[in-house]
Amino acid sequence: MKKLINKPENYVTEMLEGLYLAHPDLITYTENDLHCLVSVNKKEGKVGIATGGGSGHLPLFLGYVGKGLLDGCSVGDVFQSPSAEQMLAVTKEIDSGAGVLYIYGNYNGDIFNFDMATEMADFEENIRVESVVAGEDVASAGPSAPGERNSRRGVAGIVFVFKCAGAAANAMLDLDNVKRVAQKAADNVRTMGVALTPCTVPRVGKPGFEIAADEMEIGMGIHGETGIRRGKIETADEIAVEMLDKIVNDLPYNKGDEVAVLINGLGATTLDEQYIVTRKVDEYLKDKGIKVHHYYVGEYVTSLEMAGLSISLLKLDEELKQYLDAPAQTPFFVQL
Amino acid sequence: MKKLINKPENYVTEMLEGLYLAHPDLITYTENDLHCLVSVNKKEGKVGIATGGGSGHLPLFLGYVGKGLLDGCSVGDVFQSPSAEQMLAVTKEIDSGAGVLYIYGNYNGDIFNFDMATEMADFEENIRVESVVAGEDVASAGPSAPGERNSRRGVAGIVFVFKCAGAAANAMLDLDNVKRVAQKAADNVRTMGVALTPCTVPRVGKPGFEIAADEMEIGMGIHGETGIRRGKIETADEIAVEMLDKIVNDLPYNKGDEVAVLINGLGATTLDEQYIVTRKVDEYLKDKGIKVHHYYVGEYVTSLEMAGLSISLLKLDEELKQYLDAPAQTPFFVQL
Repeated sequence: MKKLINKPENYVTEMLEGLYLAHPDLITYTENDLHCLVSVNKKEGKVGIATGGGSGHLPLFLGYVGKGLLDGCSVGDVFQSPSAEQMLAVTKEIDSGAGVLYIYGNYNGDIFNFDMATEMADFEENIRVESVVAGEDVASAGPSAPGERNSRRGVAGIVFVFKCAGAAANAMLDLDNVKRVAQKAADNVRTMGVALTPCTVPRVGKPGFEIAADEMEIGMGIHGETGIRRGKIETADEIAVEMLDKIVNDLPYNKGDEVAVLINGLGATTLDEQYIVTRKVDEYLKDKGIKVHHYYVGEYVTSLEMAGLSISLLKLDEELKQYLDAPAQTPFFVQL
Repeated sequence: MKKLINKPENYVTEMLEGLYLAHPDLITYTENDLHCLVSVNKKEGKVGIATGGGSGHLPLFLGYVGKGLLDGCSVGDVFQSPSAEQMLAVTKEIDSGAGVLYIYGNYNGDIFNFDMATEMADFEENIRVESVVAGEDVASAGPSAPGERNSRRGVAGIVFVFKCAGAAANAMLDLDNVKRVAQKAADNVRTMGVALTPCTVPRVGKPGFEIAADEMEIGMGIHGETGIRRGKIETADEIAVEMLDKIVNDLPYNKGDEVAVLINGLGATTLDEQYIVTRKVDEYLKDKGIKVHHYYVGEYVTSLEMAGLSISLLKLDEELKQYLDAPAQTPFFVQL
């Protein structure tokens, strides 16, 4: 394992210590637990928004806590859910009477703990909590039937859900409406990824899977979950088209639609490569008659030092566009 | 070679195509050459600032073209200087009568081409051009004697020089004063890096050097230039202290000084690790009585997919602090 770390068991705590030292104007923590982050810029009367999940995905999750975005976040150890108690601590801190919305990814550990925190907030603290679960990885499962629970993993598209919900809350919408906006974003986003190399969880000390020097895995999840196809690495254009075909046909995104696009590096893939893929995405979408409102390119949701990237599309209407474009400022996301 | 690319010979051109598609509101190019980037937000009467250098270092160089920072940039192929003609094309485009300042790193190819472009701008276009050369890698050479040419490589610290000069130009200082501010920043910044893995230039197809699975190289340059010591990988804290001792004793930075700190990921190193190092940097500087005005943590100057990071300190006075803190907006750097 080749990492710039001290003891693996201190990995998350020391990372968090560095983070608070670097950004004291934007974030702090609550209840003496570094894993419970909250924004220092509390806005009274606003719906609070919290997220949470495992560490190892920076800027996700805690990187979206700040002005115009999220109010709080609890993180666990690498790739592990935080506890319900931690989520409750964050919830208590960020509630200012208008209730709290949880937005998190579709993973069993997170669902279990966020559900428990919701009950604790209700019974013990009399705080109303609603939830929106992001699950938009088209490679992870088929679309859910009407009324069925979505079984897709939540990946990079959750950033769009955060952004729209954060702006809606900042515009002082009530909890029902912030939830409605978040759910609309979650319903209209689709993502697919490709991995070229594995990553190593510090406490484990060896890569999470093996993959040959000339192979890629299309559809892999951000914790190394099995994808839909492993094969010889192809050109960036071929890979982009395979992913886009699956994404665009899923919602589906149609001619005349307007979308935001997120090209997300998983950790070790250069910005150069991300822009090479952006070029093909643009050509593909133009060819389909789908209009791009805005590109976001960079590392938004990583999987430690994994090489690879994901593509996310968010179908926009006027309301989502307004909230997506609103200003925000966190340690990792600044938009004017 | 495991990269998301098409033909290696199209690597830079396709990256640039993606970049212009993603950020049409901020950057464009001139003279039909994608390698000659200019800001779309031209400010009349302002001193123009241009940089340039090889590709493969994103966000450097072109990522700092935008509002409140640089006006133009020419890039070459990966790790190769652009030509004097390209620099001249950018110079002509960004000059609005107040002259142009070149800020670039201390590499022979860049010096040769920027010097030639300076002469061409003067003789052919009657544009006055001044230059500031960044060379702050304390691992690359000893300090220069008075009157001697600095032989140190320019690395991540150049971002501080860009930022201060860009804000000074935006404040409508004249060319002599923008140059003075840039030179002051260049004189007061020091950097040192550590590499854990090599990177692969796409056209070459194999790593630039070999390093054992348990080794690091302290002081390596951003093109894989030999460092000052190769050895078994140590803890993040030990590595940080070794680099900081060398940096702090060089200028030197003294008790009571105020600094800005840049913790810069070289490509494949996680933000987690960068913050683990930030934590130790903060402890070290507090212990020395050096005050940190602001931390910048992330990928600012990369070396393709190299793993490792660098630490830069900039000693501040009131003038530099004012310019460092001024707002800016580019595809890769946004500060409110």
